[in-house]
Order: sequence, then structure tokens, then C-alpha cells
Amino acid sequence: MAEFKHRNIIALRDLTKEDMELLLATAENMREINSRDIKKVPTLRGKTIINLFYEASTRTRTSFEIAAKRLSADTVNISPSTSSATKGETLADTALNLLAMKPDIIVMRHAVSGAHYHLAKKVTCSVVNAGDGAHEHPSQGLLDLLTIRDRFGRLDGLKVAIVGDITHSRVARSDIQGLTKMGSHVYLAGPPTMMPPAVEKLGSVTVCTTMREAIQDADVVIMLRIQQERQGKTLMPNAREYSRYFGLNPENLKLAKPGAMVMHPGPINRGVEMSSYVVNGSQSHVLKQVENGVAVRMAMLYHVCGGELE
Amino acid sequence: MAEFKHRNIIALRDLTKEDMELLLATAENMREINSRDIKKVPTLRGKTIINLFYEASTRTRTSFEIAAKRLSADTVNISPSTSSATKGETLADTALNLLAMKPDIIVMRHAVSGAHYHLAKKVTCSVVNAGDGAHEHPSQGLLDLLTIRDRFGRLDGLKVAIVGDITHSRVARSDIQGLTKMGSHVYLAGPPTMMPPAVEKLGSVTVCTTMREAIQDADVVIMLRIQQERQGKTLMPNAREYSRYFGLNPENLKLAKPGAMVMHPGPINRGVEMSSYVVNGSQSHVLKQVENGVAVRMAMLYHVCGGELE
Amino acid sequence: MAEFKHRNIIALRDLTKEDMELLLATAENMREINSRDIKKVPTLRGKTIINLFYEASTRTRTSFEIAAKRLSADTVNISPSTSSATKGETLADTALNLLAMKPDIIVMRHAVSGAHYHLAKKVTCSVVNAGDGAHEHPSQGLLDLLTIRDRFGRLDGLKVAIVGDITHSRVARSDIQGLTKMGSHVYLAGPPTMMPPAVEKLGSVTVCTTMREAIQDADVVIMLRIQQERQGKTLMPNAREYSRYFGLNPENLKLAKPGAMVMHPGPINRGVEMSSYVVNGSQSHVLKQVENGVAVRMAMLYHVCGGELE
Repeated sequence: MAEFKHRNIIALRDLTKEDMELLLATAENMREINSRDIKKVPTLRGKTIINLFYEASTRTRTSFEIAAKRLSADTVNISPSTSSATKGETLADTALNLLAMKPDIIVMRHAVSGAHYHLAKKVTCSVVNAGDGAHEHPSQGLLDLLTIRDRFGRLDGLKVAIVGDITHSRVARSDIQGLTKMGSHVYLAGPPTMMPPAVEKLGSVTVCTTMREAIQDADVVIMLRIQQERQGKTLMPNAREYSRYFGLNPENLKLAKPGAMVMHPGPINRGVEMSSYVVNGSQSHVLKQVENGVAVRMAMLYHVCGGELE
Repeated sequence: MAEFKHRNIIALRDLTKEDMELLLATAENMREINSRDIKKVPTLRGKTIINLFYEASTRTRTSFEIAAKRLSADTVNISPSTSSATKGETLADTALNLLAMKPDIIVMRHAVSGAHYHLAKKVTCSVVNAGDGAHEHPSQGLLDLLTIRDRFGRLDGLKVAIVGDITHSRVARSDIQGLTKMGSHVYLAGPPTMMPPAVEKLGSVTVCTTMREAIQDADVVIMLRIQQERQGKTLMPNAREYSRYFGLNPENLKLAKPGAMVMHPGPINRGVEMSSYVVNGSQSHVLKQVENGVAVRMAMLYHVCGGELE
Repeated sequence: MAEFKHRNIIALRDLTKEDMELLLATAENMREINSRDIKKVPTLRGKTIINLFYEASTRTRTSFEIAAKRLSADTVNISPSTSSATKGETLADTALNLLAMKPDIIVMRHAVSGAHYHLAKKVTCSVVNAGDGAHEHPSQGLLDLLTIRDRFGRLDGLKVAIVGDITHSRVARSDIQGLTKMGSHVYLAGPPTMMPPAVEKLGSVTVCTTMREAIQDADVVIMLRIQQERQGKTLMPNAREYSRYFGLNPENLKLAKPGAMVMHPGPINRGVEMSSYVVNGSQSHVLKQVENGVAVRMAMLYHVCGGELE
């Protein structure tokens, strides 16, 4: 079986198709652990994992924390807003100080794109990216790959539409990297103000001028969260208007292939990105995404610690 | 021995006398574990318990967390005020997302009465109520039962006075349910503005017009906390005046039976609900209540996970 | 081997030279555990340690938490600012309530000097001081001793300069206690407004009128953090002016002995207390201090729990 050669997982841009296939295969094994009565294996016993979250996040932090505990690692949560970040310490100083406590992995969320590369240069432990600015969110990308592959048995040749605020979405960037490497055809749609100027730099994608064009005959529709907290207020479209042109509802969902998957990284602004009818409908896989999230993160933590799949 | 048939513990109103007796018997066993040098058993190893606290609470959260760890469960703390609650996610969405991470138990505190029933309908894991609005606080009710039974060896036939802000007290509601089902005679006293209009709906209780009437010849006096944070300011009585009519002090405590127990769910507003002399006195059982709290919560977590007492 | 007879570690003032030597010897053993692949021993399994932090602190809390977990203790974090401290509970009440949950150790940081003695009188578990006001910070003092001894193989006869805000520094007080008992010669320098009036009460130290005098021929230079958050604004010197007279830079560092150690408790205000050139230079031991911090805290937790070094 292949070997995972990366000490860090910062971006799917840095991983090969083989790397991702290894992670997905391990995640499937981890999923089996999560369905047991005793949901715990001793694999990472005696390892220390620091969850360093500069931005609040219930679900990603919880998912990583549960993943670590199911592998028997010790976890320490740090939210620097209530800590020495207020004493003006730089990221580099924080990193080196944490490293001196000999953690095995630092899982970090940070508002600045690329902060993890900076961190990884400073430390000798593993760095796992739990989201950095508008750059990448590789665990979300991997769990999206796994969720799609669960449904279709494959990723290559699928038409995947990604709709919404592409500019500010780290999820979109990780999904584009993961999907295109695995052979999916990615179509992007969103308001002009939410489409990055040099979108072709994101990967081999098709940029659509309307949502209709993107979701027409799609196998998968990934709706992005409107990142209201990440935008200047003036750029924020009127929610009702946004919903009319870029929201997913039972009518426009019919444009996609019958039984097409609907996905969203959450939390969902119901009635804005998607109607509640679609969220709760049979084509929605949003909770399967969350479930796969724990398994994928277990696989990530396992492999950066040097684990090998037998 | 009886079997515990409930997946959730949301309110003592939902439990039978037999249910509560089983929980108290288990709590006595758990108390033995807490007095050991190694205060830990492997009973819930590999179980994941999420402490979801929408309202801050040092002692209840700490007590549940210690209870879980002594049973070897993995615990994850979530305080949604600093999380995606600020992103406008509904309780139902949060619940389903957490459920997808496959916890075994969600222990929740929430400001809305009845929120736990709503949660329990959405999830397949167990739900344990750590306090919901002015509804119930079943772990507090059970630890009060245990503390009283420790002293008298029984609950039936005792006169128990509950004094203070009945309207806003979830402790009062759980105590009334637990005590009346166990055969105690409950007497309520409090300012007219703090007595709910249809008090008879709370259970088979005697409503007194003065504190004197309630505590006269009582075996137990339970003083409630003035929930200043839960009241409109205009309703809040002057603390000194409140203390004069509804505070417990060495003088009016003499009205109760000799050696009567004094209890309070804490934290105590010393000099308001009770004089420090009474809090620190020999009749006070407030710290025994806290001690029993860990044991009772261990019993609750154990039984909702399907444990049986041999 | 000597036995550690203290239930609490509140101040190095309370410890003998032999006590500290025992703690340092154990810390060296603990350091070996921290360098293993599986960084965990079962020594404190089944023990409950409460980290009660009334003041935020990333590194000290994290260091104690990691120390506890590496010894297999269960840890519970409490930050009373978001808890019942807002409900007006006193420290004594909080302490007794926590004690009723049967922790083995309470590790506390508190803004009031001497709060730990008050706590220790109330509880029967061990109390470990993680910093109290401007009084002591014994784990920092011990890790400083260990870091210096690592470099020189001894502590007696060394000249150690401590420079900065002596008045507000609990680190200075613990360092002075530890160093003078171990036979080091301590020289203090700082602005007149930052030198306590009765400085001789701190221990057998030499007070210098200039920084030059203190660091001249020093083996070790300990720079203190400007505690901007602990001072009235009017007393705060202009940072540039402070740096000119009491900052450490490559020029004045030449006054110390060749290869003299530079230390700082962190977080560092770069460019104020020390130039970045010095922080990052070969004479800086700041990260070694942090590394030793985990080992020293493991030793402290171990010995207050009754551990003996074989």
C-alpha cells in the first residue's frame, strides 16, 4: 500500500491523487471505528494534539477533538482570543512556545491565508490546517470527496457545480483542488463580486455566468456559505436577491441530474443559499458530510503521525 | 434489580419512583468510586459525551465533566456563545450536526424551557438535561433527594419547605416532582411576585402565605437562589427587604424541627437567601449536595447508556 | 532519596533547598518521558486536576494541562470569568464547592497575592500556584532554576541579573527565592518606579542603580516582562525610553560574561525588554525555559500527590 510522505496537511494543492486516495481509504476504516459501541482505538496514545483556533468554530474544532480522542491522543484546546494573543505575541512566538511543549500535531485555524506555511516552517511537529482565511480547508475538501465517492463509487467524470461566494471560500479552493485532481469536472457560479479576478488560477474549472449553467445536468451541487462575517458590508448582496439568483430550491434543483447530490459545508443560512425544503430533502447529504468529517480527520491525524495503512 | 428504560433524562416529571430509586442506588455505588484513591472505572470507555452549554455554569458543567471522566468517557465541551450560534444556526441544526459526529450522550443546558424535548426528537443519542429555562434541573433534583435520604434514611413522610423564587426556579420544579413522588410533603413559600399563578400544576404541594408557615416543623428547608439574571429588574425586591421576609437565619431556622437540614442549589447570595451563619452552620448540607452531584450525574450517564445495576 | 513533605506548592519561599533539588531531579526524569514517542505514563491515573484560572494564560494553563495529561490525570479547566464568578460567588465558596467534587489538585491562577494560602486553608486537596498577583509564580521559578542548572551544572556562585519591573513581577519574587536559596548571587535593576520600596524583604539581593551594574559579568540575565496590563497607565514609561535604559540588546549584553544565558518568562515585548536579535540569538534560552516548564510542572503535580522519587 502507498505511504503517506507528508508531515503536514496544509492544502490539497500540495497533495497528489495518490495521497488523497490513501487518506480516503483510511477514513473508510476509521468510519468503521466510529460505528462501534466502543468508539476508540489506542493508535495515537501518548500523542499530544493542540487545537489552536484563532477563529471560533464549533463544528470543526469539535470534529477534530473527537477525532483525536477516538484515536486516544491527548488534546489541548487553545483559543488565543482569550489568551496571550491579547498580550501581542506573534504567531511565530506562539508557535515556538507551543512546540517547546512537544506536541505531535498542531491543528490550527487562522484568519490569515498561508499562516500555516509560516507556522510549519517554524515548528518540527506536524501542522494540520483547519481553515486559513480564504485559502484552503483541506479536511472539508477531503470529506466532500469521501461523501461524493460514497454515493457514486468514483469521482472521475462527475460534473460538480460549486455555487456561491467563490472569492471568500476556502472550502471552494480545497474542493476545486481535490475534485479536479480526482478527475471531476468542476463548474463555478456566483455573483460577479464573489468570483475572484483570476479564477483560472484556482485550477482547471469552468466558470459559468449563471447558476443554471453550472447545475444543468450536474451530479453534485455544492452550495457555499455566504461568509457575511468575512465581507465588507457594502459588498453583501440583499439576501432575498441573492437567494433568487444563486439560491438552491426544488425548482432549479430539477436542472441537475435526477438524484443529484446536494452538499453544503455548513452552517447553512436557510432560505439564503438553500431552501429548507432542499436542506431537509432526500438529495441533501449535509449530515453525511459531517459524519465523514470525523473519519477524515482521524485519517489525517493518523497519517501525519506516520501511520501506515496495512 | 429494576431496569432503567429511559434513553433520556429531561425531567423528573417523566420518571417514576422506581426510576429514581434505581438512580439513587447507583449513585450510592458511584460515591464509593469517588472516595477511592484511583477515582476512575472503565465503564463508559469509548463513549463520547458532549457538554453543550448555552448558558455558563461552573459547577454543573464541571460536575458533569468530572462524572464523565471518572467513568472513562471522552468529553467535549461546547459553549455556543463563542461559536456558530453567532452564525445563526438553529438548535435543530446544531443538534443534527453534533449527532452526525456520533456522540453517545449530549448533556445540554439551554435558556429555553423544553428545548431538550425538541433536541431529543431530533437525535438518536441520549439527551441529559443540565437545566432548561425555568422548567427542570433533574440532576439537581436527584442530588437533593440523595442528600435528604442520606440524612433521614427515607424520603416519605418528611416535611420539606422550599422557599424563594418559585416562578423562575427549575430546581424547585425538579425538587417538587422528585419529592412528592417519593412521598415527601412539600410546602412552598415566597413573595407573591415569585409564586407562579397556577402553582398547583407543579404537583401536590401546599402553598404558604408566610415563610414561617412553610418552615414550621420542617425536616428540610431548601432555600432557592434569587435568579437576578433571569428577572426583569423592576420585579427584583430590595435585597434587604427580601432577606427580612424570606431569608433564612438562625432565628427563624428554630421554627423547623431540631436538627432540620438546610439546603441550597448554589451559588448562594450570602446575606440574602441565607445568613452566612446558617450557610456555615452544622445544619447546612450545601457541600454534601455538591459532592452527591458528581455521583448522581455518574449514575445518570451510566443508565442512559444502558447500564444495569447488578 | 529525600521525601517531599508539602501538600501544596504556593511559593518557593516555603520550600527548602532540598525540596527544590528533589523537584528538579524529578523534572529531569519527567523530561525523559517528554522526549519519548509515547509521551505518557500512568502515574496519576484516576486523579482529578482542576485548572482554575481567574486570569487568562495560554502558556501556563497549556503547560499544566499537558503536564497533567502526560501523567494520565484527568483535567478540568475552569475560567471563572465566564462562570459563576459573575454570579458573585466568593473564592472560598468556589473552593469548597470544587473540593466537594473531590479533585486531587487545584492548580490556580488568581489576581490577588496570597489567594492560594486562603484557598489552601479551605480545602483538603493539594493547591498548586500558577501565579498570584505580584506574589509568586513558583513553577516559573523552578523552571528557571532547571534551565540555568542545565547550562552550568550548578546554581551556587553564579551571578544572576534580574532586570525590569521588579515591583509587579511574581516571576522575580520566585526567582529571587529559588536562586538565593540555591546559592546564586542575585542583582536587581529597573526603573525607580518599578523597584519595590522595601526590596530587601524579597531576599538577599543586591539592588543596582543602573542596568549596566547588574549585568556586568553576569552568568545569567533574566529580563522581566513589562506588565502593562497590571500597571496604572500613568506609571508606564515610554516604551522607547524604557528600552534605552532597561532593554537588552547585543551591545549591553557584551557586558555580561561571554556566553552568558539570556532568559525571559514570556510573552516577550520584542524591541522593548529585548531586541529581536537577542531573543533569537544563541545566548537566548527562552524556548528551553518553556520546554522545562512542562517537566517541572509534571514534577510538581507528581510530588504534591505523594509521589516519591526512587
